[in-house]
Amino acid sequence: MKILISNDDGIDANGIYALAQAMKELGEVTVIAPRTEQSAVGHAITMKMPLRVTEYYKNGEFFGYAIDGTPADCIKIGIRNIMKETPDIVISGINHGSNTAINIIYSGTVSAAREAAIMDVPAIAVSVTSHEAINFDYAIEVVKGLTKLVVKNGLERGTLLNVNVPDLPSEKISGVLLTKQGKSKWDDIYEERLDPYGKKYFWLTGKLMDTDITLDTDQNAIKNNYVTISPIHFDLTDYKSYDNMQSWNIPEVFRNIKE
Amino acid sequence: MKILISNDDGIDANGIYALAQAMKELGEVTVIAPRTEQSAVGHAITMKMPLRVTEYYKNGEFFGYAIDGTPADCIKIGIRNIMKETPDIVISGINHGSNTAINIIYSGTVSAAREAAIMDVPAIAVSVTSHEAINFDYAIEVVKGLTKLVVKNGLERGTLLNVNVPDLPSEKISGVLLTKQGKSKWDDIYEERLDPYGKKYFWLTGKLMDTDITLDTDQNAIKNNYVTISPIHFDLTDYKSYDNMQSWNIPEVFRNIKE
Repeated sequence: MKILISNDDGIDANGIYALAQAMKELGEVTVIAPRTEQSAVGHAITMKMPLRVTEYYKNGEFFGYAIDGTPADCIKIGIRNIMKETPDIVISGINHGSNTAINIIYSGTVSAAREAAIMDVPAIAVSVTSHEAINFDYAIEVVKGLTKLVVKNGLERGTLLNVNVPDLPSEKISGVLLTKQGKSKWDDIYEERLDPYGKKYFWLTGKLMDTDITLDTDQNAIKNNYVTISPIHFDLTDYKSYDNMQSWNIPEVFRNIKE
Repeated sequence: MKILISNDDGIDANGIYALAQAMKELGEVTVIAPRTEQSAVGHAITMKMPLRVTEYYKNGEFFGYAIDGTPADCIKIGIRNIMKETPDIVISGINHGSNTAINIIYSGTVSAAREAAIMDVPAIAVSVTSHEAINFDYAIEVVKGLTKLVVKNGLERGTLLNVNVPDLPSEKISGVLLTKQGKSKWDDIYEERLDPYGKKYFWLTGKLMDTDITLDTDQNAIKNNYVTISPIHFDLTDYKSYDNMQSWNIPEVFRNIKE
């Protein structure tokens, strides 16, 4: 099995190192990750700048390829130019910090896996809840088990699995659940400051408004110490509104523009 | 009616100027847009750098606020800190170049409108098909008509409308259709070059693999010279896979990790 591993924390993060080492038990691992941290870049891709690929060494050994771009760039150029064939699975992570509810939209970790799904490669994004996490053992066991399940059961084309793992010792983890993207969103606050030259600038802060109350949502399940596995896709069509908006009679209403 | 206007081509683009001037007929317009071009940044937000807000003048008159961040940043800080109240509608565009099918995922134009939808503000993203477009009259008539329809009929919370307009004289436009996100994707090619110092670098190029064949998809409708209006949302859950994956028995399969 050929396994492509990426992330958004950068190729020197602890999470991707732990994941890459562990996945060698299941197959041939190639690491292709951003050279620098790319958190919250969403599904950005690099079009107006050239990309460079650098061999990256860790502890004196070749570890993988560093790309001076975004997580989505790593998957595109990784599959197209660096690997000689399409991988059997792409795994993005292990991210430092959870990616649940609205955070999925902003996440570079999820976007790397989503780019793989766009390229018809099965993909898993995996995050642990703490930015300071150093123990990835439980997350690794989940990813290994899930990789075997994906190989056995297959995934719908265009679907990826978004996994979140509490940063807790295994005896405190409640279990593993199949979940949906939660509805919780941020209450954004921009903190206003003055620079040394008297000019205003703003820092984004805020707090997550935790509105999810059932265990079938990633946000509530993770809060209750469950591991969450959510299938997500990149078809953004709002089919309910598509059906409802038939009554707007759009072709008829706009017929008169040309006159 | 309070109208917030943004884009991803930057505050000095022709499209946003044409849109802002036209929308003044319908209400009080505030322009808050990126200081520089932000195409293909997707839903990136700025968290690790401070944001600055600059007043931008055009033809000697105050035009709007330039933000040195992404389209999504503009909507967040625009609504939270610059406008004194929540706008009635957010319009992002007029983008130079279409945003159909898979391009919706990468688009900064769509992400600005999507950030508004996340903040429970009705939103429209609008693009014309040509990067060299200078005539925005038809697109403006569509946006004005659609704004009136949105005010009259309302939009589902969290839904935005993604509009694409052919860059053609009005007599060549086939009509206006309600559509879904198409399935067409890019065949990416990274062009390899050597810099003046003999080091390799890569440019992203490629071509869209046009697999949409029915007029209910944005990609095929725009190809047939229709204006397209697609309702999209930010719930990425793949409900079909969520249902199918119940048979994976995830809680049971992973019960043994702790042992």
